[in-house]
Amino acid sequence: MNKYSERRSRLRGLLKGEKGIAVFIGNVESAAQYRDNGYKWRQDSNWLYFFGIDEPRFAAIMDLESGVDTVYADDYDIDDIIWTGPMPTVASLAAGAGAQDSGTYSAFCTAVSAAVAAGRQVHWLPVSRWYNAVLLSSLLGVEPGQVFSQGKKGCPLASEPLVKAVIEMRLVKDDDEIALLDKAGELGYKMHTTARRGIRLGRIEQEIVGDMEGVTLAEGWGTSFATILTQHGEIFHCHSHDCPIEPGRLLLIDAGAESNDHYASDNTRTYPTGGRFTPRQRDIYQIVYECNELAFNMTRPGVAYRDCHLAAARHMLDRLGQLDLVKGDLDEMVADGIAGLFMPHGLGHNMGLDVHDMEDLGEDLVGYDPGQTRSSQLGLGSLRMARKLVPGNVITDEPGIYFIPALIEQWKRQGTDKGRVNYAKLEEYYDFGGIRLEDDVLVTASGARRLGSRRLPIAPDEVEQAMAEDN
Amino acid sequence: MNKYSERRSRLRGLLKGEKGIAVFIGNVESAAQYRDNGYKWRQDSNWLYFFGIDEPRFAAIMDLESGVDTVYADDYDIDDIIWTGPMPTVASLAAGAGAQDSGTYSAFCTAVSAAVAAGRQVHWLPVSRWYNAVLLSSLLGVEPGQVFSQGKKGCPLASEPLVKAVIEMRLVKDDDEIALLDKAGELGYKMHTTARRGIRLGRIEQEIVGDMEGVTLAEGWGTSFATILTQHGEIFHCHSHDCPIEPGRLLLIDAGAESNDHYASDNTRTYPTGGRFTPRQRDIYQIVYECNELAFNMTRPGVAYRDCHLAAARHMLDRLGQLDLVKGDLDEMVADGIAGLFMPHGLGHNMGLDVHDMEDLGEDLVGYDPGQTRSSQLGLGSLRMARKLVPGNVITDEPGIYFIPALIEQWKRQGTDKGRVNYAKLEEYYDFGGIRLEDDVLVTASGARRLGSRRLPIAPDEVEQAMAEDN
Repeated sequence: MNKYSERRSRLRGLLKGEKGIAVFIGNVESAAQYRDNGYKWRQDSNWLYFFGIDEPRFAAIMDLESGVDTVYADDYDIDDIIWTGPMPTVASLAAGAGAQDSGTYSAFCTAVSAAVAAGRQVHWLPVSRWYNAVLLSSLLGVEPGQVFSQGKKGCPLASEPLVKAVIEMRLVKDDDEIALLDKAGELGYKMHTTARRGIRLGRIEQEIVGDMEGVTLAEGWGTSFATILTQHGEIFHCHSHDCPIEPGRLLLIDAGAESNDHYASDNTRTYPTGGRFTPRQRDIYQIVYECNELAFNMTRPGVAYRDCHLAAARHMLDRLGQLDLVKGDLDEMVADGIAGLFMPHGLGHNMGLDVHDMEDLGEDLVGYDPGQTRSSQLGLGSLRMARKLVPGNVITDEPGIYFIPALIEQWKRQGTDKGRVNYAKLEEYYDFGGIRLEDDVLVTASGARRLGSRRLPIAPDEVEQAMAEDN
Repeated sequence: MNKYSERRSRLRGLLKGEKGIAVFIGNVESAAQYRDNGYKWRQDSNWLYFFGIDEPRFAAIMDLESGVDTVYADDYDIDDIIWTGPMPTVASLAAGAGAQDSGTYSAFCTAVSAAVAAGRQVHWLPVSRWYNAVLLSSLLGVEPGQVFSQGKKGCPLASEPLVKAVIEMRLVKDDDEIALLDKAGELGYKMHTTARRGIRLGRIEQEIVGDMEGVTLAEGWGTSFATILTQHGEIFHCHSHDCPIEPGRLLLIDAGAESNDHYASDNTRTYPTGGRFTPRQRDIYQIVYECNELAFNMTRPGVAYRDCHLAAARHMLDRLGQLDLVKGDLDEMVADGIAGLFMPHGLGHNMGLDVHDMEDLGEDLVGYDPGQTRSSQLGLGSLRMARKLVPGNVITDEPGIYFIPALIEQWKRQGTDKGRVNYAKLEEYYDFGGIRLEDDVLVTASGARRLGSRRLPIAPDEVEQAMAEDN
């Protein structure tokens, strides 16, 4: 039995008692400008996990009653062979994935429609590509928007048993996946090292992005998400890279590789543009570094990752208090979410075939245990992974401190901080930017380890030394 | 009046007499894995041409009767500002694009629905993103598939007057566009030079892809289409890059840059992997080179590009006859499409904001003059640009010769060649691969010139010399 059959067999076990069919729809090419000029081909992650066939326009049905798995796609004709080269037959690809049967793509549509018409239960996952949404919705007789994944809440119409079973499996990485994640981590290390070595005053940010993404493309699929490389670290997803590197700034680089096997890495480092931190930068950097270490040291089976977030938040507030930026009772400040002003995002997220693993299935179902409810506070409310950790979880550890003038002004106006924030002092930091430090972490039987064989320099002295050696 | 207002003013002129409204829908982010992990942002080209605003989720209505242009999008809230930074207001972006009015995205939907309900004519362009298809189809009350662009035929339901007017304008590049295309050509030159310098036996093809794409990302948006870099040039769109560079092969590199302004370049060169052509490779290469030169030398206003294709085909057959691969009357062989066995694609296509410019609007409308009908022959039938040339056209000149065993066997079996092909001799070429040589060409008032300031080495001696100097 190959790994795909094994995984489907486990899935059947988790769905024991469910009737009907489970459908899986692989991706089709996604147009960038027009149908035949597509974005780089990327298969659907759930499809990769359960079937592994890295080709467009495949679908499958697992019949939960008969026990038969059927893979559907169209064989190539002579035109396809001229334009894209020979492809193994669908039957042989299906057999390679351990499926008992195969059929054409239109047979897939017919089979799903027939199941719907016969009143059989049809289990499906939330959809993230609009082509698939149009296809699936037409088969089910609903609107496309009703099958499309809506982020945090996933898709209310999708099959809860199937979604939960897939999450249960993909949350815990098997040995094969851990090896592939380590490999992606190696590539991420190389990518970030190239970037760090390219930091020179006057260079345009985009040039560094090109260098680092070239490394990822040379050995992997590409980036696992849109690269963030900015002297405005306080803007979380700043994708504009047109500024020259200026002296005295902080350059935040949040970037990851996706390996040819489609596993992700995701690291963030923040560098002083001239190679040495100013005292003020070093103070804040040191706090973020301590929060990263603190969270990692807490990470082990049985600990809720939400508690790691809160411990990091507490430490952050404690240390910001020493800088006279906040004051008040630490526990109360944590409870009131004061850390959210400085870190309006969560400590981390699951990672695997997706950089935010399974976000299409619904963040709350993926990241929260039954009984855990998501906070509405800024920061903690954005936490994507709150669950009690188990061995095999792969998570990011990414605290950050940012000074976001628009947000600070809003809190000041609205009194959100209930008197804890020293706004006068904080104004001095309006030109600071932001710092984030992120590692990828595997929960082991006894604790945790970071992915890849080497950790990117992170302690302030290490960073300065590495940058000195780079030049 | 800025260039966008000017273009829309010209468009209004071309649509004189038409009633109702013309709608333009910019792109939204396109999911790679899930909604919030998108492919690299790429705006719709028609939107860029007429409005220029390079941000997601914009739309516009040109009222053809009142003369008012309205741009619609949603202003950022505090969450957007935290996550993606500040953005100018929609009103100011609309004003910058020369629009008289602005509104929210939902106001756009309301306005289109109201126009439909009032029985006003709604002019729209074929859609290439499924999200936009779902949106537009719901406003028009049709199925998503009915508004989606189907390639060659475009979209039969779309507004023919609007489609034709847009094509008329975009087919002829203005001075601003020509400067941007020259700039993209420079970047393409750099990209291909990096690739050529990276050719060394034993390297994995993907490593060269990464190097060259890194160059494009460092200075431009990225690649203008999925890079083709393969020792199997006979497979036109071979996107697998996992082979090591082997001695004695030909490496075909078809790749283009998209500049930060979103104009494309598209060049192909074919290199002997060891730096020197074998005599057999040089024979075939020389023919392709001659066809490229011949077509370029014919390119001038008043000549139909279809005739350049046919002249290249004729010369190719003449020279293949000298190699004893075909025999027969040249004119008859051209008429019978025998060249299609060796070059089953067209000589070239329009290029601009899209590498296959405006392919979403329908290849036949874009590339064929009224009265020109598209051939059904292999090769000529794939010609994307047949029109009589006018100054300002930008086209590719990309003849090729390929030896495709599956295709040759099919012709042999079916007698497609009517006795012209020497199959016994052709069998010797089954392991040859393919050669394509492609330049980007601007039609000028008196003739043509290639885009960019430098031409990549192309004559066989030039190529060998450049490769010798690379090492």
